[in-house]
Amino acid sequence: MERSYRLIVSCPDQVGIVAAVSDFIAQHGGWITEAHHYSDPESQWFFMRYVVRATSLPFGEERFRALFEPIATRFAMNWYLTDTGVNRRVVLMASKQAHCLSDLLYRWRSGELAFDIPCVLSNHADLRDYVNWHGIDYQHLPVDGSDKSHHFAAVNAAIQAAKADLVVLARYMQILPPDLCERYPGRIINIHHSFLPSFVGARPYHQASARGVKLIGATCHYVTSELDAGPIIEQDVVRVGHHNTVEDMVRLGKDVEKTVLARGVRYHLEDRVLLHGNKTVVFA
Amino acid sequence: MERSYRLIVSCPDQVGIVAAVSDFIAQHGGWITEAHHYSDPESQWFFMRYVVRATSLPFGEERFRALFEPIATRFAMNWYLTDTGVNRRVVLMASKQAHCLSDLLYRWRSGELAFDIPCVLSNHADLRDYVNWHGIDYQHLPVDGSDKSHHFAAVNAAIQAAKADLVVLARYMQILPPDLCERYPGRIINIHHSFLPSFVGARPYHQASARGVKLIGATCHYVTSELDAGPIIEQDVVRVGHHNTVEDMVRLGKDVEKTVLARGVRYHLEDRVLLHGNKTVVFA
Amino acid sequence: MERSYRLIVSCPDQVGIVAAVSDFIAQHGGWITEAHHYSDPESQWFFMRYVVRATSLPFGEERFRALFEPIATRFAMNWYLTDTGVNRRVVLMASKQAHCLSDLLYRWRSGELAFDIPCVLSNHADLRDYVNWHGIDYQHLPVDGSDKSHHFAAVNAAIQAAKADLVVLARYMQILPPDLCERYPGRIINIHHSFLPSFVGARPYHQASARGVKLIGATCHYVTSELDAGPIIEQDVVRVGHHNTVEDMVRLGKDVEKTVLARGVRYHLEDRVLLHGNKTVVFA
Amino acid sequence: MERSYRLIVSCPDQVGIVAAVSDFIAQHGGWITEAHHYSDPESQWFFMRYVVRATSLPFGEERFRALFEPIATRFAMNWYLTDTGVNRRVVLMASKQAHCLSDLLYRWRSGELAFDIPCVLSNHADLRDYVNWHGIDYQHLPVDGSDKSHHFAAVNAAIQAAKADLVVLARYMQILPPDLCERYPGRIINIHHSFLPSFVGARPYHQASARGVKLIGATCHYVTSELDAGPIIEQDVVRVGHHNTVEDMVRLGKDVEKTVLARGVRYHLEDRVLLHGNKTVVFA
Repeated sequence: MERSYRLIVSCPDQVGIVAAVSDFIAQHGGWITEAHHYSDPESQWFFMRYVVRATSLPFGEERFRALFEPIATRFAMNWYLTDTGVNRRVVLMASKQAHCLSDLLYRWRSGELAFDIPCVLSNHADLRDYVNWHGIDYQHLPVDGSDKSHHFAAVNAAIQAAKADLVVLARYMQILPPDLCERYPGRIINIHHSFLPSFVGARPYHQASARGVKLIGATCHYVTSELDAGPIIEQDVVRVGHHNTVEDMVRLGKDVEKTVLARGVRYHLEDRVLLHGNKTVVFA
Repeated sequence: MERSYRLIVSCPDQVGIVAAVSDFIAQHGGWITEAHHYSDPESQWFFMRYVVRATSLPFGEERFRALFEPIATRFAMNWYLTDTGVNRRVVLMASKQAHCLSDLLYRWRSGELAFDIPCVLSNHADLRDYVNWHGIDYQHLPVDGSDKSHHFAAVNAAIQAAKADLVVLARYMQILPPDLCERYPGRIINIHHSFLPSFVGARPYHQASARGVKLIGATCHYVTSELDAGPIIEQDVVRVGHHNTVEDMVRLGKDVEKTVLARGVRYHLEDRVLLHGNKTVVFA
Repeated sequence: MERSYRLIVSCPDQVGIVAAVSDFIAQHGGWITEAHHYSDPESQWFFMRYVVRATSLPFGEERFRALFEPIATRFAMNWYLTDTGVNRRVVLMASKQAHCLSDLLYRWRSGELAFDIPCVLSNHADLRDYVNWHGIDYQHLPVDGSDKSHHFAAVNAAIQAAKADLVVLARYMQILPPDLCERYPGRIINIHHSFLPSFVGARPYHQASARGVKLIGATCHYVTSELDAGPIIEQDVVRVGHHNTVEDMVRLGKDVEKTVLARGVRYHLEDRVLLHGNKTVVFA
Repeated sequence: MERSYRLIVSCPDQVGIVAAVSDFIAQHGGWITEAHHYSDPESQWFFMRYVVRATSLPFGEERFRALFEPIATRFAMNWYLTDTGVNRRVVLMASKQAHCLSDLLYRWRSGELAFDIPCVLSNHADLRDYVNWHGIDYQHLPVDGSDKSHHFAAVNAAIQAAKADLVVLARYMQILPPDLCERYPGRIINIHHSFLPSFVGARPYHQASARGVKLIGATCHYVTSELDAGPIIEQDVVRVGHHNTVEDMVRLGKDVEKTVLARGVRYHLEDRVLLHGNKTVVFA
């Protein structure tokens, strides 16, 4: 994939934003390979994502930012620029179950998803050998059931030490404390094993079985201080029937979980997800 | 479709049920064209549905019942026998929106679904001409907002007069009172415009939009006295995104609603739905 | 829906197109409510669709065209402008089966899809009463099996007389002759009852059953002189199994056919479909 | 999972089969936990699959077979009995791409799918380390482009030496010669990266892109001597659009391929797939 810059913008909607941005890029000879806009009619808020070939521009990232700043100021933009040549640092967290972690590691080692993994954190030692085989650091951070604060302090320290751009909870089974969630807004992605907002909290497949639903699902969302209530990035479902036990649902759900999580992580890493209050704009 | 009998059974599971039933049918030369069994491991309850060609048997419906009774008694069966040559009497109820009603009427007049429609009941007059064009009686039963009891009394009287086997709420927008629901257990089918148990009650598409879900759905279920909490027969979903307004969701949802309702009604009319507590066994 | 203009453009890709177009609109105070771009990397061709509120512009359709012409010339654009306040004239063609026609007529009479229907053409008389109930002209144009040329001459004359912008083959079972297809490029939409390119031609459900596929589908496409080979607008599938007879597939397929056709027609009427050789760009 | 016997039967349909089989099992106190029947109306052929708890029967596998033989003979049955306590021996074959192989190995090592892997065969050495990490034998069998016969002789020898019950082509990119295919009827499973019968042969995603389809898919099927024409076990699709390049399709398709292959392998290992000419009965 050719090296590119991604320009991500959100701001109050008004006439002239697209013209100003596209004119800026055109003036410098920028070759736009992807362009997405969305104007939310309710909130009157505007979102855009441009991908521009790095070699088509006569300047680098810093100069791009400096030259674009006046436009950003004029339209009161929230904005950022990323360089596809620089990988994000992603800390993966897991527990005992390997389906999501294995799936992400496969996509990483095959080059399907480009990111760096400074470490994998887990409250169990089970997945150490598998992670280490990939040459990735594995940190076993045990949980003391009577006082989890040490665990979460260790988690936070590890995230800090890793200089993580993103934390992915790949079926990490502990509920992060609110203060930890709030420290990394829009930077912690979780996979919840239900079609939210149905079946918040523990044992969602048991809840689904008890209710007798005919589809089960999974939800990839940003973590906020309220449990399973953060902005949804991606969801999907799979059909079940009366003949499926809870164990079947767990098994069938795993395939949805790993696929939905991988999609969500991809969208995030490609700067396709823009926060909009407690919702997301996803330029998929 | 050749005329057949459908034998529907549920009972405590034990060794020998299938043998006893299939032996009974074989002894009389019965040709089984469809056979479904399900043994629920948790409740130890057994469910079966057999379809037998009427012409392969040397007796009719009454005699079938009499001869089968000892087996039913022996295994403590809940059971019934239906004759595919006899149409169910189905009362359709709607409000102003026509998508579900139109869809069911199309399936009825094209012969895709075989049932009789003694009448359509509505709290509005809007759909009268369309229903009457089909040669079907349309009863406009207005609702007095300050006291709905007269309306529901009229609804009940109409159901009784129609000798209805089934009532289908095809986007009828009033909540039936508990006593009316309880009068017809397993005989009132509703389509709810969300993927239950998410978004119970009013304006589910508004709720879905506010939560920012990435799929919306519809649920066909039996009505019980608890709102939107009855046994689910069928569900499906459709993908939505940030660019879809509530109005879009309403429009996209209509296609799911009518398809899911039609499937649920078909399953019921073909005796494919067996109640199992607050869940359903659906031999689809 | 507020009245808007839709500007549809395709042209060779180069730097500055978006800037030029968006600058033009911004200069005149135009409020863009939807904006889609796509740059095809293989063909180096560029596609865009802008929706602009009519009331935000100081001029009407004619003046818009005149003022935009220099930009169009500069970038060698294929382009057109439509006014959402002006309905397209759509001739519907059907045979005996009503599922697609009924579905489109429901969407038309409920206002879900905005278009005018100058007439329905059919080689059979079966659907006359139903169409007439809607107050729509029904023309029965019989087919002489030994010489179909009279039929197609009559079809062509009816399309001409109707001043049709679009012809929708809603399960019209005759194959249009190549010269008729070529007379209306990109203006005849067909629904084929298979997941193309599988099962071209007659009796696709029989072909699907013989091959033992586990999903069946439907394809909405523009008609070209080569049978079932025109640009695909939309497709979808539904799951089938060994227990589904050809008759089941026909029934299950109908739901997919009508949904896929309705989506395709909507995309076309909303100017979301741009031809790209034998493929389509669909700004859904 | 409790140890069980699976009884798989297909035979000409006639009155009394279910009665005879279920009576046999009931007489010996057998507890049936799953029962599937299908009577094909066209071919008048009957299929059944029973799962019986091993501990509920007073005899073992050999005695079961001996006692059942008279019934099998009476109804001219093709039949077999398997013991869920005995794992199948499955040879996996791959090339360079790891997505299907990784996915199957994950399911194997997590215990989701129960089978033994005597070896992995590949025409490339790339995946050796990964396979060996699992403690599984990896045999690199290079292909000589000018004469592939040595390769296929080596493949056949390895299959024989492994005493394989099943061979799974997990994106093994070579076309097996007809004689090798015919040697293992119903025992070689392939995953083809298209929604068959569309896009048989090489580079199906390129074919799909050229045709402009709106869904791409994958097909799990038994290998026969005719390329990509064997009995289909499972299929699924994923939505694509004009913006998806061939490379995107390859990436999106991988998720479908691995999921569809895993489902097909599961169905086979659980004796849920019964051959019916060039089609399959799948008791899913």
